[in-house]
Amino acid sequence: MLKGFEATAVPMGAARDARAEIEAFNAEYAAVLDAGQVDAWPRFFTSDALYRITGRDNADADLPVGLVYCEGKAMIEDRALAIARTMMFAPRYLLHQVTNVRVLALADDAIAATANYALYETLVDARTTLQQVGRYYDRFVRRDGALLLRERHCVYDSLIIDTALIYPV
Amino acid sequence: MLKGFEATAVPMGAARDARAEIEAFNAEYAAVLDAGQVDAWPRFFTSDALYRITGRDNADADLPVGLVYCEGKAMIEDRALAIARTMMFAPRYLLHQVTNVRVLALADDAIAATANYALYETLVDARTTLQQVGRYYDRFVRRDGALLLRERHCVYDSLIIDTALIYPV
Amino acid sequence: MLKGFEATAVPMGAARDARAEIEAFNAEYAAVLDAGQVDAWPRFFTSDALYRITGRDNADADLPVGLVYCEGKAMIEDRALAIARTMMFAPRYLLHQVTNVRVLALADDAIAATANYALYETLVDARTTLQQVGRYYDRFVRRDGALLLRERHCVYDSLIIDTALIYPV
Repeated sequence: MLKGFEATAVPMGAARDARAEIEAFNAEYAAVLDAGQVDAWPRFFTSDALYRITGRDNADADLPVGLVYCEGKAMIEDRALAIARTMMFAPRYLLHQVTNVRVLALADDAIAATANYALYETLVDARTTLQQVGRYYDRFVRRDGALLLRERHCVYDSLIIDTALIYPV
Repeated sequence: MLKGFEATAVPMGAARDARAEIEAFNAEYAAVLDAGQVDAWPRFFTSDALYRITGRDNADADLPVGLVYCEGKAMIEDRALAIARTMMFAPRYLLHQVTNVRVLALADDAIAATANYALYETLVDARTTLQQVGRYYDRFVRRDGALLLRERHCVYDSLIIDTALIYPV
Repeated sequence: MLKGFEATAVPMGAARDARAEIEAFNAEYAAVLDAGQVDAWPRFFTSDALYRITGRDNADADLPVGLVYCEGKAMIEDRALAIARTMMFAPRYLLHQVTNVRVLALADDAIAATANYALYETLVDARTTLQQVGRYYDRFVRRDGALLLRERHCVYDSLIIDTALIYPV
């Protein structure tokens, strides 16, 4: 478990609404990545957002950095741009399954939540493989009625990951 | 992405109700297939329904046909009957995980939606394998209060699929 | 399908609320197991609860026992204690994906439901593997406003399972 993501008491009705909203958000987020529209990916984040991909061993040891670390939307956009150019050379299909949404804290327009994900990858002429499983640790805020990510920590279980991993999760 | 399945603006409350209803529908649909009750499978479709299984490369190229193509409930029932007879000779367990429901359009009693699926297969005396991952592209209509499928396109990522695939997804 | 878990007519609104509540319950349940907090696992059960892990072939044949069989919370706590001591010697990461919740029956404060699960396992220095897929067959009761399990049958498809399996599912 990531520090600062402890479960707190959340009223049942409010938690249910927040879960439904986060599920819809995660489905949109995954659809953009799965369609290869990495240029549209930064729009899910606030301008001061933190985006990180790290291993569960790192997260458990409370190590801040990881495989990918973006501080601020400008860095997230930079990364998206770099990937959009690189991906041309390595065509593959991606598919996310995002499940097990938990609402950990809910205050005003801020929500702390987690979700479990599995990411499948299919290279041309190859069988589908499980690229990684892991958990999102998220902080959402509401802007103009819609949720945005202020923090997304993608904490993967899989200790051996294809070193070519550059695409967001 | 399949043509004609572009996302449109859907009011949040209506989208949430539709998502919940589709999730329940997909769980029932999968339970029937996973229980091997293929004869009960046609009841999820309208009389003029289209059912199709095709690869993502085909779908991206906007090719209409695919691995399986049924136009109308009579063809769907034919297929179910043929499978019910064949399956006797190849016992296996199936299990679906259907996630990431997205409501793309909502008008009167018609809903366009997608969902991601993983289909696991277990043959006797064998480990469980991932048979395919993919996405449903659906058009639902409401009949007597309940949803029915007018179109279900099962678009699988997995480019190499067991050629023995005959069972619906 | 397990005997006694036939689907019955459930009003749509009530079914939707129950589904949402069970999804939240299952996410909490899985989070406790995935965090290795097996000592906190018994709290999801009533004092007279039944917990069982068995294969689909056993369940289909209506055989009562299986790989794991706990009758009453005392037995469940015993098991948790035994595992808490053993797990020290075999570090691994677990991750559940629980999907496809179906509400089969709803009466007063009792709910019969199923859900599909996939359980991933990652051993140190190893790739993530799918340990098992299966289905929960559950009977929930409400105590002080919250759901508890009176029965959970974990029925796995995978016919070949690591014999070292001792951890709850």
